[in-house]
Amino acid sequence: MVCECVFVGTELLMGQILNSNAQFIARRLTEIGVTAHYQVVVGDNPERAREAILTALSRSDVVITTGGLGPTQDDLTKEITAEALGLEMELVPEALETLKVAFVRLGCPMAVNNERQAYFARGARLLPNPNGTAEGSIIEKDGKAVINLPGPPREMKPMFTDYVKPYLLKRAGLCLKSVFLRLYGIGESDAEMRVMDLMKSENPTIAPYCGLGEVEFRLTASGKTEAEAQKTLEPMLENVRERFKEYIYSEDVDAFGSMEIAAVRALTESGMTVATAESITGGMIAEKLTSVAGASKVVLGGLITYCDEEKTALLGVKRETLEQFTAISAECAREMAYGARERTGADIAVSVTGVAGPGDFNGIPAGTVYLALADKRGIRVSPLHFTGDRERIRTLTALRALNEIRKSAAKG
Amino acid sequence: MVCECVFVGTELLMGQILNSNAQFIARRLTEIGVTAHYQVVVGDNPERAREAILTALSRSDVVITTGGLGPTQDDLTKEITAEALGLEMELVPEALETLKVAFVRLGCPMAVNNERQAYFARGARLLPNPNGTAEGSIIEKDGKAVINLPGPPREMKPMFTDYVKPYLLKRAGLCLKSVFLRLYGIGESDAEMRVMDLMKSENPTIAPYCGLGEVEFRLTASGKTEAEAQKTLEPMLENVRERFKEYIYSEDVDAFGSMEIAAVRALTESGMTVATAESITGGMIAEKLTSVAGASKVVLGGLITYCDEEKTALLGVKRETLEQFTAISAECAREMAYGARERTGADIAVSVTGVAGPGDFNGIPAGTVYLALADKRGIRVSPLHFTGDRERIRTLTALRALNEIRKSAAKG
Repeated sequence: MVCECVFVGTELLMGQILNSNAQFIARRLTEIGVTAHYQVVVGDNPERAREAILTALSRSDVVITTGGLGPTQDDLTKEITAEALGLEMELVPEALETLKVAFVRLGCPMAVNNERQAYFARGARLLPNPNGTAEGSIIEKDGKAVINLPGPPREMKPMFTDYVKPYLLKRAGLCLKSVFLRLYGIGESDAEMRVMDLMKSENPTIAPYCGLGEVEFRLTASGKTEAEAQKTLEPMLENVRERFKEYIYSEDVDAFGSMEIAAVRALTESGMTVATAESITGGMIAEKLTSVAGASKVVLGGLITYCDEEKTALLGVKRETLEQFTAISAECAREMAYGARERTGADIAVSVTGVAGPGDFNGIPAGTVYLALADKRGIRVSPLHFTGDRERIRTLTALRALNEIRKSAAKG
Repeated sequence: MVCECVFVGTELLMGQILNSNAQFIARRLTEIGVTAHYQVVVGDNPERAREAILTALSRSDVVITTGGLGPTQDDLTKEITAEALGLEMELVPEALETLKVAFVRLGCPMAVNNERQAYFARGARLLPNPNGTAEGSIIEKDGKAVINLPGPPREMKPMFTDYVKPYLLKRAGLCLKSVFLRLYGIGESDAEMRVMDLMKSENPTIAPYCGLGEVEFRLTASGKTEAEAQKTLEPMLENVRERFKEYIYSEDVDAFGSMEIAAVRALTESGMTVATAESITGGMIAEKLTSVAGASKVVLGGLITYCDEEKTALLGVKRETLEQFTAISAECAREMAYGARERTGADIAVSVTGVAGPGDFNGIPAGTVYLALADKRGIRVSPLHFTGDRERIRTLTALRALNEIRKSAAKG
């Protein structure tokens, strides 16, 4: 099955917003085995939008549009779709009712032009939108289908997951099973090289996604039933688990894992608490940990000591240590981790000190980092070296620290 | 002048990477007054890529491609472009030399297939790539032009800024002047409504960009000389400054401003230092401040107190305060700010405590936040309420705190 996406919005052509919908939909289509040959962005121009939809229809089975479902005169995607398919627009009374209820919930009066949002192509199947006023729709004609979705990602994404994905799967007569394996400590090309042989497989499939300092593998199998898909998936999953066992830090059935989620999960499961002592990352480690819902049960707090005086005042790093070894040293990292664990009473404390750049600091090159982890087994210091700009060095440092927390918590 | 972008890469169609190049180029084109009617993404498929380039050429003056300049067999954009324009490919000796030097710098041997990167369409103008091995090129034919750029953003973006933008401006016979005004404390639609009259102007132009909790206006004027552009820009700039004077927090000639940069700048200019006491934001305020190069001169440190015990232990919040008012209170915020200022000796201390969600905390709704700022003038507490999910509530809280730091520093 071939699907083409047409993203409608002058704001995309002008760069006012990032087209994050494109990656979201592309990734979901790949997951369910749907092929895409093109993505097209077009402005709020009726002629060009119609041409884009007609071209897309001529070369694919399903066309998905986003954007242009709002109440203003610029919002014409539904009308253009109906015209392209040779269908009349008609008022859907249930949609008008839903719209009125939505405006009551929003606590604002419904303008007359909002009624346009209750008009759809004849025979359209409506897709509810609990996060906005623009309902989506699926219109089938001559064995093809056009799916109109709203533009705002927080409206489009749940609608895609709840209605479009099941529709496409049913259309293809398939059930799917996916697993997401996340890896730390292995390079992108190394990870890819090691699964080259598996990447030829058509069912199940394996696809690598590379984040900063991380690699994710998505394994997907399809079958006529869920059980058949699962059975098809298993051998490759076992194989990949075995190949990368020292690198895999999480295995999930959805795509929304992260190192901070894995760290908070390991802490929660072991009933342990954590505290941070951050210099180079300036709060990023604690910020990432506390971005996870439920972190308040395991994160006690943290100390950000961005100058020597605060390392002494807040963490008890000895003045002599700073004088003899400077703040960018294994000794300083060790005392920071010790101080954070002592002063907060956390089971695990992690500290990082280093040079983020740009440029050297007192002759120490940017990317030089010392990380210490204190737990009941003692304090271990790791000298690290990262390359890249300030943001990259800080992010890679935080990722490493989160991995150390996760490993310590997993050991109990 | 009409320009169409063709983004070449199967990894984009499969959603393996986000097409951030699309927004970057779109925004730059808008800034220099170039019109775009379409953006097209196509995979590493020679027939479809050629068709996309030919279609783009038929409906625009300039076609910009990204991706497909690498050394592998999949990288065919230059060959396809040459074919579409009816030009031969030829080895450019200078490019081969540059390539050899680049590989020496990278410290790895140059494979035979890398030589492909030194072939270009006859007559192409080469664009240097200090960040990679794939040089870009501009090929002119019959009054039109195709510009081939590399795919990786850290290679593409500087090449666009250094070579493509000047080329397009020269082609249009224009000089440009832009100013970016960043606003805090005004809603997106309110800000837009207030410049509706100005948005009709064609030279200078004004374009609003909306970030989370922030609004940015880009004002751009063109002229035959820089002085003429500047003179055209001035009246509108004065007008907008006057309309939004209570909201504007920074005015820059580049697009890369942010509230944290403005806060660090204000601290640096006043010679003042800052410390943070964070509960709900878990380190985000300090993380944002320290993301700015040079922050180490003004950020002393911070205390992240994510549980009641640490608010007492690390910041000296009284147990009675926590018992009587709970941690989500103006009183707690006040004592946190006081404690942070006392314990670090910073000129300014900011504290935040609240409920990030998801869901209520002991009957207090998510989005309830208390912010306190302590400086030489005393301590002021602001009760705030934000809506949205955990990430949004935390981000809006951090933004508000950064703005309070900036205002306090600006007062001296």
